[in-house]
Amino acid sequence: MQSDNPTAAILVIGDEILSGRTREGNAHHLAERLTDAGIDLREVRIVADDHDQIVAAIRALDGSLGGTCDYLFTSGGIGPTHDDITADAVAAAHGVGIEINEEAKALMVERWTRLGVEVTGNRLRMARIPLGASLILNEVSAAPGFSIGHTHVMAGVPQVFTAMVDWLLPRLPAGRRVTSASVEVLRPESAVADDLGALAAEWPDLSMGSYPFHRPEGFGTNLVIRGLDAERVAAAMDALRERLSL
Amino acid sequence: MQSDNPTAAILVIGDEILSGRTREGNAHHLAERLTDAGIDLREVRIVADDHDQIVAAIRALDGSLGGTCDYLFTSGGIGPTHDDITADAVAAAHGVGIEINEEAKALMVERWTRLGVEVTGNRLRMARIPLGASLILNEVSAAPGFSIGHTHVMAGVPQVFTAMVDWLLPRLPAGRRVTSASVEVLRPESAVADDLGALAAEWPDLSMGSYPFHRPEGFGTNLVIRGLDAERVAAAMDALRERLSL
Repeated sequence: MQSDNPTAAILVIGDEILSGRTREGNAHHLAERLTDAGIDLREVRIVADDHDQIVAAIRALDGSLGGTCDYLFTSGGIGPTHDDITADAVAAAHGVGIEINEEAKALMVERWTRLGVEVTGNRLRMARIPLGASLILNEVSAAPGFSIGHTHVMAGVPQVFTAMVDWLLPRLPAGRRVTSASVEVLRPESAVADDLGALAAEWPDLSMGSYPFHRPEGFGTNLVIRGLDAERVAAAMDALRERLSL
Repeated sequence: MQSDNPTAAILVIGDEILSGRTREGNAHHLAERLTDAGIDLREVRIVADDHDQIVAAIRALDGSLGGTCDYLFTSGGIGPTHDDITADAVAAAHGVGIEINEEAKALMVERWTRLGVEVTGNRLRMARIPLGASLILNEVSAAPGFSIGHTHVMAGVPQVFTAMVDWLLPRLPAGRRVTSASVEVLRPESAVADDLGALAAEWPDLSMGSYPFHRPEGFGTNLVIRGLDAERVAAAMDALRERLSL
């Protein structure tokens, strides 16, 4: 599928995902949101709470640093504890310093004062933001995320991550929304492969995928056609149904 | 946490994951299995059905090709359709040819003949295996996965992926199993950060993580201690409970 839509990557940071202890959900949520916004998600990486791994991934994926994508969204590792090293790694990857951000500090102190929570040094650790970054606000937690270069740094707690995505996405240039049409057949993928391949060759501007499944009633396949032109997607789906006698 | 356990990466291949259409579950399943086997999962990548992206990821992650990990497990893209390009990309990454594997073909023809399924060209596409690879068998589907270099290529359909993992993992050298202990506190992460950081400095051979959550009753934190020595993990958890007056 040809597209000049912006491209994106997601970087998830956290030992707890890699150990299998926590099932990752933020990337799945953001993947759906990006599709709706016409932003083409190209890659997801999950790495450990490891400075060098995080720095290498940011450099590989942030287009402003020579990486592959127009947007890089990160999830996790910006809390108050010793293993929250994302902000420092982002600063290192972008070659800037990091210090307490007065705007972030003011937001957090205001919220904590209202809630009667003590302002401590480790809480203020969450106000350490790379120099030159702008803040990503949210309604759930006082601690903000931040944007620098093409990197947008968000929290790992799902409710906070989602709130940050809600705040950030409408502020980013989006693309043309991709339209998709799908049909499910109770036939194995190999029984529809020839027809789908022939159709894909006839409609080179569209993307055609087949997603096999296995259920008690047998092997089946979801067939999906995606493209920027809704009328062509619909016409190709009609042609597919005719080929498969659906 | 110091460890000389083998390291692993998972590469998930599929547009349907990146579009948010399908929620990935194979990496989560394998992450748990690797933890049980004492294999240290270092990275997960999800890429599109794109030849260059798959080749680049295999070269970056397969230790036999100069990549970062002792094992690379892949999921997806080995079906019979035009968008199933994983086997060709793996062959290219490893610099070998690809052709119909007679052992794989015999397995598939035997199963299909028994089930009365017609043997067609696109079905036999699943028997195309890189030269020099060995097969990964499974009880669910006749089509095998395969291993070449440090790369182990498996199906994306969850029931087939899981069956291939069941067959493969007991055949790989494993490591020392990591023991973990955890405790949940209904306190925000910032209220336990100092204690956890001090403890982590005292027990450098252990890994200590804090995983915040947000529920109707408020912010809370899961505290997890992991290590190879079960007695030291238990002793450190006792010390943590004492510090936090639990």
